[in-house]
Amino acid sequence: LNIIVTSGGTRERIDAVRSITNGATGRLGSLIAGEFSRRLPGSAHTVYYLCGAGSAVPAEGGNIRIIRIEGTDDLQSRLEALLTNEKIDAVIHSMAVSDYKVNSIATPESIAESISRRLNDRQELVSQQGMTSIVKEALLEQNISGENKISSELEHPVLVLRKTPKVIEMIKRLSPQTLLVGFKLLSGADEKLLIDTAYRLLIKNSCDFVLANDTGTIKDGNHEGFLIDAGANFVKLEGKEAIAAAIADSVLKKIAEGTK
Amino acid sequence: LNIIVTSGGTRERIDAVRSITNGATGRLGSLIAGEFSRRLPGSAHTVYYLCGAGSAVPAEGGNIRIIRIEGTDDLQSRLEALLTNEKIDAVIHSMAVSDYKVNSIATPESIAESISRRLNDRQELVSQQGMTSIVKEALLEQNISGENKISSELEHPVLVLRKTPKVIEMIKRLSPQTLLVGFKLLSGADEKLLIDTAYRLLIKNSCDFVLANDTGTIKDGNHEGFLIDAGANFVKLEGKEAIAAAIADSVLKKIAEGTK
Repeated sequence: LNIIVTSGGTRERIDAVRSITNGATGRLGSLIAGEFSRRLPGSAHTVYYLCGAGSAVPAEGGNIRIIRIEGTDDLQSRLEALLTNEKIDAVIHSMAVSDYKVNSIATPESIAESISRRLNDRQELVSQQGMTSIVKEALLEQNISGENKISSELEHPVLVLRKTPKVIEMIKRLSPQTLLVGFKLLSGADEKLLIDTAYRLLIKNSCDFVLANDTGTIKDGNHEGFLIDAGANFVKLEGKEAIAAAIADSVLKKIAEGTK
Repeated sequence: LNIIVTSGGTRERIDAVRSITNGATGRLGSLIAGEFSRRLPGSAHTVYYLCGAGSAVPAEGGNIRIIRIEGTDDLQSRLEALLTNEKIDAVIHSMAVSDYKVNSIATPESIAESISRRLNDRQELVSQQGMTSIVKEALLEQNISGENKISSELEHPVLVLRKTPKVIEMIKRLSPQTLLVGFKLLSGADEKLLIDTAYRLLIKNSCDFVLANDTGTIKDGNHEGFLIDAGANFVKLEGKEAIAAAIADSVLKKIAEGTK
């Protein structure tokens, strides 16, 4: 079997030295890769471990291939290549993919200049909605610095973000027979909201399972999660080891059932 | 002797999961701490190693104390406590401290609403300068999310940053007899600009030495640096090991001269 585990977090560049990152450590993902590796010994199987810079990595096993990922674009192209060129049996998509990347970098002065120019061009009273589109245009037209370091002398740099493509949406589209485990992380949600939100992710992206968790119950080595299947059944799991084992068991069982 | 080495990078929170980080690995800082530890064996000496999350750490030596740092505020209070409560002989401030933290989080819609409200209040034509202060007020008044995760459904979140306090400025002020090594990292500067800029940092913050380096000559394990002293003399160093050794030698020589 060929299994892909994505893990850790992406890093979206602001400039030559700064990035937007998330706190994902990759510890859960590394345990998941380890569980698959242990259950699938021998050279007939490969666990591809796509992880962010600084992410935890599983203990080197003969069948684990570690691939380092930078930003969302990088993750997307690596996944695309693997899903197109290999028969991938399952993708466990535990990586915390940035929802946003940097569109442009501005200052209050440059934004004001751009808004003033647009207001002057209009020569008429601007409605609230008109102002919104003017502000949006002004924010988006600012130059990306990108290459070099933002000066440390600016008083109020302004980072204008834009959405990254949803990597998870691409997986079943490229490879419909691949089993897909999605992850949903919320912050401060109660159990019902968490499970409902995670199940919507499952439906939307044709996942076979979703692991739902909340930052409020991930701390001091504890990690609470709900593994939800396509029939909206779920089990509550306590601890990263239990979560990793349950995901590996559930995926391999479903693959086995599919090949019977 | 008591030596402080700061290392790695700070992490400024955007929300419950996202942060602004810099690519500092802490590898140079960990080598510097190692060089001091080797030159100062025995329990009479302490090397305090203040490093960012995910930073490299020196091999555990009996006299190295590792202290993990989050953001700039955290670094400042830890340094303040050490400099106030202990006799610190030298601070090697190699940590990449964020120049900026998140002031507020906005959307084009919320900014437009705030600008429109201010324009209406004025009831008169607004000059370019007037527009700049309106935009600045509008950007800064936005609510900090902070506690929770920014929704992943926004089209264009806008992060408004503000300057962090300059930690390096505080060191000689709190403890004038402490030797101070500053670090200056530029991006794409030539040798003259790099050394001039670094020397201005030395003068401004009463450093005894500054290590000047440029992202363009830090790659693939190479690391070029210039160690500049208060007399504007400098030596060119090749490799993190050579830089770390030169810093430890220069600092300990200067401490020895001071106590003669």
